Amino acid sequence: MKAARYHAQRDLRVEDVDVPQIADDQVLIEVEWCGICGSDLHEYLVGPAVIPRKETPHPLTGAVLPVTMGHEFCGRVSKVGLNSKLQIGQPVMVDPRVFCSNCHSCNVGDTNICNSWGFLGLQSNDGGGYSEYVAVKEDMCYVLPDSVSLSEAALIEPLTVARHATKKSGFDDYVDKTILVLGGGPVGLALIFVLKASGVGKLIVSEPTIKRQEQAAEFVDVVLNPREVNVAEKCRELTDGKGVDIVFDCAGIMPGLKDGMDALRRGGTYVNVAGWERECIVPMGHFMLKEIIFRASMSYTEADFKQTVDEFVAGKFKGFEKLVTARIALDDVVTKGFEELINNKDDHVKIMVTPKKELLAH
Amino acid sequence: MKAARYHAQRDLRVEDVDVPQIADDQVLIEVEWCGICGSDLHEYLVGPAVIPRKETPHPLTGAVLPVTMGHEFCGRVSKVGLNSKLQIGQPVMVDPRVFCSNCHSCNVGDTNICNSWGFLGLQSNDGGGYSEYVAVKEDMCYVLPDSVSLSEAALIEPLTVARHATKKSGFDDYVDKTILVLGGGPVGLALIFVLKASGVGKLIVSEPTIKRQEQAAEFVDVVLNPREVNVAEKCRELTDGKGVDIVFDCAGIMPGLKDGMDALRRGGTYVNVAGWERECIVPMGHFMLKEIIFRASMSYTEADFKQTVDEFVAGKFKGFEKLVTARIALDDVVTKGFEELINNKDDHVKIMVTPKKELLAH
Repeated sequence: MKAARYHAQRDLRVEDVDVPQIADDQVLIEVEWCGICGSDLHEYLVGPAVIPRKETPHPLTGAVLPVTMGHEFCGRVSKVGLNSKLQIGQPVMVDPRVFCSNCHSCNVGDTNICNSWGFLGLQSNDGGGYSEYVAVKEDMCYVLPDSVSLSEAALIEPLTVARHATKKSGFDDYVDKTILVLGGGPVGLALIFVLKASGVGKLIVSEPTIKRQEQAAEFVDVVLNPREVNVAEKCRELTDGKGVDIVFDCAGIMPGLKDGMDALRRGGTYVNVAGWERECIVPMGHFMLKEIIFRASMSYTEADFKQTVDEFVAGKFKGFEKLVTARIALDDVVTKGFEELINNKDDHVKIMVTPKKELLAH
Repeated sequence: MKAARYHAQRDLRVEDVDVPQIADDQVLIEVEWCGICGSDLHEYLVGPAVIPRKETPHPLTGAVLPVTMGHEFCGRVSKVGLNSKLQIGQPVMVDPRVFCSNCHSCNVGDTNICNSWGFLGLQSNDGGGYSEYVAVKEDMCYVLPDSVSLSEAALIEPLTVARHATKKSGFDDYVDKTILVLGGGPVGLALIFVLKASGVGKLIVSEPTIKRQEQAAEFVDVVLNPREVNVAEKCRELTDGKGVDIVFDCAGIMPGLKDGMDALRRGGTYVNVAGWERECIVPMGHFMLKEIIFRASMSYTEADFKQTVDEFVAGKFKGFEKLVTARIALDDVVTKGFEELINNKDDHVKIMVTPKKELLAH
C-alpha cells in the first residue's frame, strides 16, 4: 500500500509498504481523510523532534525512523480482531494516541501525560493517516453515525485538543468570561468553536494574517491585528479597564506571550496550547504582580475524545469545516500539502489528505 | 527622629527627619524591631526598582525618593487617632501594605494584587521600619499578647509571605504531598515552617550554602546541595520515581527553575515566590509534556496576615526565630546590615534592626 514516510528533515516520501498486521485487540482502518497538523509541519521543517531516531526507539512501540506520518485521521473498518464489536465498513474516528496504561499518570486517568506518550503517525509502527491502512486498537475507535460525513470527521482531533485546553483552564464555565485567543490557526479556531459550544462571554482573537482574520471574524466578537494595534490596550478597553479573564495561546511566540500576559486581568489564567520553537521568557512583572496562573495543555484524554465526538455528532461545531482550505491526494502530500503550507502559509488553515482519489471528485 | 532613607542605589542614609503626622484613622507606632528583607537588599543593590523615582510618584501615596525603608516591623502604639480602639503602649505587629480598596482586585479581596499596591518602607510618606516612628492605619495593626516577644514578632511578615504562597499552591492540604523548596533563605525557611504547621508529607530543600543547609536540616527531611547532586534525580529517588508534587521557588534563578521543573511529577505545581533579577526562561519540555501548573505568589492579604498572626501567637512557628543571625542598631543599618548581607551573605539569614539601642543589651 502507499504510505508517506518521514525519513529526515524535509524528506517525506510516498512509498510502497506492507499493509500493517493487526493484533487481537486491533482493527485495520482503511483511511479516508487525514488532516495535516501543525506538529507534523514542525517535524517536517525542523525535526526529527518527536519522531524517534534510530538510536532512541520509542519506549513503548519501539518505533524508529522512517515512520508513516498523519494522526488526524478517520476511515472505515476493513478488518477486525478477535471478539471485535466493530463491523467491516463501519465509519470511525480514531483517537491516535499511544500510552502505557501503567504509569502514575495513566493510573489516575491522565493518559495524555503518560510517561511513554506517543501517537500513531509519529511514534508507532502501526502506521499513520497518510497511508491507505492503519492498525488501530479497537477501543481507540469511535463509531460515527450516518449523519456525520467522514470528509469532516477528522476535524474532531484538533477540536479535542481544544476541548482539553478548555478543561485545563481550571474554569468550569465561560459564560461571564472574556477570553483572548492568540492565533487564529486550526487550534485557535478549534478553541473558538469549543468555547462557543460551551457558552462564552466575549471572544477576542489576535491574528496577524488576513485570511485567518477573516475566518475568525465570522465567529468571534473582536479580531485584533497585533501588527497594527496594541492588543493589551484594546483588551482593557473591551473590559472596562480590567483585562481579559483567560488567554489561550495557540501561537507560541514571544510577542504573543507579552501581549497575552499584559492583556490578562489580575489573577487571570494563561493557558499555553502551542508548541514553542524558541525560548519562552516569562514577563515576570505581569506574571508576579498580577499573580497570573500559567498552565500547560498537552494533547487530550479518552474523556476529552469521547466528549468531543459526542459534541461533534450533536452538531455543536457546525461551521468548523470551513477551515479546510484544500483537499488533496496522498500522492501530492509533499508538494500540495507540506510545501504548500510552508510557501503559501497565509492562504491556508487546514489541508486534508486522502489516499482515495475518488473522494476528491465530490 | 532618626530614619534610614533610600536616596539612590547603594545610598541609604540614617538622617534626622520629622516624626510622621497621623491622620484620624492612623496610629503612631514606636518601632522596636524591623527585619531586613531580600527585596530591601535588591532595592539597595540594583534599585530604585519599586521605590518611586521623582518623575513617577506612587499613584496612591504620592511618595517619591528619598523614602524611609523597612517593612517587616513591629513596635508599640505611641499615639492614637480619633475613636481609636488601641491603647498607648500596646505591642503590635504591622501589616505594612498599601492598597486602594477600590479596584477590581481589592473589591474581590485580593488586596495583594491591588492596581496601586505598595508598602510602608518602600512606597509611602508615612515612614518605614528603619526609623523610630511610623504612621500606620489602625486597622493594619495586630495587637500581640504578652506571650509574644516583640523581639520575634517582626518575623510574622516573612511567615505571612509564605502562608500566602501555600494558599496559592491550589492545594488545601499537604499531608500526603512531597514538596521541594528551592532556597533556604528567610522565605524558604518561612515556607518550611508554615508547611510544617499545616502538616506536610515529605519536605526537601535545595540550598547551596553551608549555613543555610545546616539551618534547614533541623526542620526538613532532606537537604540537597544543588552544586553537588542532581536535585531532580534525587527527588525522583525519594518519590519512587514519580517526582515531587509541589515546588516552591524561593530562589529565583534559572538553575533552580530547571531543577524544580525537572523534579516535578507530571501534573505538578510550581509556585514562584521569588523575585527574579534575570530572565525566567520556561523549560517547555517539562512544562508542556508534564502539564505543569506555574503559579505566581505575590505578597499577602489581610486574611493571610490575620491567620499568620494567630498561628504565631499559638506557637506554631517555634524555632523560626533561629534564623535571626544578627541584631543591630539602626545607626549601623548600612555597615552591619545591608553591606554585611552583601559581603558575608553565606553567614546570614535574617538581620534584625532596632532604633532602640537598649534592646540590644538583652
